[in-house]
Amino acid sequence: MKRIIILGSTGSIGRQALEIVREHPGEFAVVGLAAGRNVELLRRQLEEFAPEVFAVADPDAGQQLWRDAGPWRARCAGLGPEAVCDVARAPADVVLNGLTGYAGLRPSLAALDAGTHLALANKESMVVAAPLLRAAAERRGVEIRPVDSEHSAIWQCLRAGGAGEVRRLVLTASGGPFRTWSHEQLAQATVEDALRHPTWNMGPRITIDSATLLNKGLEVIEAHGLFGMPYAAVDVLVHPQSIVHSMVEFVDGSVVAQLGTPDMRLPIWIALQAPQRAAADFGRLDLARVGTLTFEAVDPVRFPCLGLARQAGESGGTFPAVLNAANEVAVAAFLEGRIAFPDIAATLAAVLDAAVAWASRGPLDLDQITAADTRARAAAVERTGRAAVRGTGK
Amino acid sequence: MKRIIILGSTGSIGRQALEIVREHPGEFAVVGLAAGRNVELLRRQLEEFAPEVFAVADPDAGQQLWRDAGPWRARCAGLGPEAVCDVARAPADVVLNGLTGYAGLRPSLAALDAGTHLALANKESMVVAAPLLRAAAERRGVEIRPVDSEHSAIWQCLRAGGAGEVRRLVLTASGGPFRTWSHEQLAQATVEDALRHPTWNMGPRITIDSATLLNKGLEVIEAHGLFGMPYAAVDVLVHPQSIVHSMVEFVDGSVVAQLGTPDMRLPIWIALQAPQRAAADFGRLDLARVGTLTFEAVDPVRFPCLGLARQAGESGGTFPAVLNAANEVAVAAFLEGRIAFPDIAATLAAVLDAAVAWASRGPLDLDQITAADTRARAAAVERTGRAAVRGTGK
Repeated sequence: MKRIIILGSTGSIGRQALEIVREHPGEFAVVGLAAGRNVELLRRQLEEFAPEVFAVADPDAGQQLWRDAGPWRARCAGLGPEAVCDVARAPADVVLNGLTGYAGLRPSLAALDAGTHLALANKESMVVAAPLLRAAAERRGVEIRPVDSEHSAIWQCLRAGGAGEVRRLVLTASGGPFRTWSHEQLAQATVEDALRHPTWNMGPRITIDSATLLNKGLEVIEAHGLFGMPYAAVDVLVHPQSIVHSMVEFVDGSVVAQLGTPDMRLPIWIALQAPQRAAADFGRLDLARVGTLTFEAVDPVRFPCLGLARQAGESGGTFPAVLNAANEVAVAAFLEGRIAFPDIAATLAAVLDAAVAWASRGPLDLDQITAADTRARAAAVERTGRAAVRGTGK
Repeated sequence: MKRIIILGSTGSIGRQALEIVREHPGEFAVVGLAAGRNVELLRRQLEEFAPEVFAVADPDAGQQLWRDAGPWRARCAGLGPEAVCDVARAPADVVLNGLTGYAGLRPSLAALDAGTHLALANKESMVVAAPLLRAAAERRGVEIRPVDSEHSAIWQCLRAGGAGEVRRLVLTASGGPFRTWSHEQLAQATVEDALRHPTWNMGPRITIDSATLLNKGLEVIEAHGLFGMPYAAVDVLVHPQSIVHSMVEFVDGSVVAQLGTPDMRLPIWIALQAPQRAAADFGRLDLARVGTLTFEAVDPVRFPCLGLARQAGESGGTFPAVLNAANEVAVAAFLEGRIAFPDIAATLAAVLDAAVAWASRGPLDLDQITAADTRARAAAVERTGRAAVRGTGK
């Protein structure tokens, strides 16, 4: 039995991971669980999976669980972000980090520092602190296994060649719900419109990020961090059917792609079972039934977030942390109806511009990243507040 | 410098291999050349590539070259099929077998027996004698590297998983020039129609085989022979654009595909450079420009040759040799205008049916294969003669 820890167990990734555990009895022991604030669901998960340890990231929500946790109290590592890190440090074969946003970084580092393989769905970890994560993994001789469908695809495809034989990575993008929308339509896009993702069923933050294509921008930075390829060698291609999950072009011109039905359980499964492939049935790909796959270039004008992400990635240092922090604030403001859809990109551009005066381009430590995150959040809050006051919001 | 031998140097594969050599000076030394009967072109190749040894398979054509070979005479291994085997045995890093048809078998075995890696474009070798080739390769510790674009693709994709982790191979097929033709149209198809292949530029035999889909049937048998997968786990999918060269589905449901522009130089290059991938530029795949890839199931009624090949493969023993021999005769008869297009399949069906009385299903030796080849050819000659007399030909 593989001992696994699931961080973000009540989120989209966490729930799908637990579904896998449920459907494969005897294969996994759930050693630890950590959730953000959905204590109702966490409670049911405790009863079903009986982990050795659990934590709740949001202290207020955690209090509620604590009050009626009964026999589970003894297994509670605590409430708040540090308790999530404690769960990540429990002895296990693999930690699946399905937390959303910047909050996933410290638990990622905690898992690696504890010498546990990290199945990483929290792309922000890699976006803001790739050098720290890679150093920790190397120090402890453990793997960072991507769970994003795109990076899982690339990770699989890279096996078809040797180190130094890669010319280019090609991340596919569904294009999101606004792929065919005009500038004018985008200006009027509602939260509901943005949450209507054509192919993937995901949490709200990442769904909005898919609509702006900032998600793809973060994935470009993530690919750079995971696979060490220069930004000029990480391309994005719109592929609305989300069947080809990503591709690797080798130096001889051969392109190797990974395909599958759009189901996050597959990359989760692959990361949990690595380095083996284990038999599973999450829906077989039937290309004769799919019939047609299409590909098109990204429109950089209607989707400026992708270019902003590339720019932040190429600037390096704390710029990706600035980008991510500004985006977390801007998306929250959009979801709350305080800013319009195009204001998300405008916020990122403004905060990145301002950060040129203070962000670092050099090597990183965690304190610098935290400081940059805090400062960028403040700038974005100020900016989205002003946007709301200016009335560009709904 | 890699020392290479090219068998079938004046054919489509051979010419493209020599183009690669020409375009990459200093990378390859052409140690040996063997051609069928195009002595005019072979003579120019001798002058350009100055091999240490050469041969001509057709003795009559060879005599002509011999008469005016001048200084090259001393390097001639001889005239006739046995001389081609002598060329295959010359010391080299890799033998590229680009011969057409059954004639490629003995040279394939000669190369492997000499302890040289075999880059195999002659699929008939593997179709009729896979167990013999695999045993020879294992005995000498050398590789059989597929040069068919489909098998090269699978060979690359298999690296994305471990042994025993493969669920299914999916060979793609362009569908050939008659993909959308009705039964009535197929009955009237001319040689010119059949030679008009939509995506690949190949020799006449293989182009007709692509039109009947027998080529794909031979590839199913070849895949079984090369990769040891049962026939039920080797599927065929029509993909008219010939961009996805083939795919592997792993036990977890992940599908890994190899893509590229339809250019045989890439699989030739990969087989010559293995186990490394070396930088090359045979045209970059630009999927945004390609735009659309389509997939559909094969119609087994309009294209009966695929089913016949599966049947021969599953019968095993000398049945694949019977199939191949009957096909070589039937295609020649079609190219000469002596039988109609649907008579090719009818000939295969009739010869396979008759062979049930005499073909072997057990383990193979070369004599059995040769005897089966001879007997099947005779049966096919008789049958196609009758077909011509009946006037179903043009």
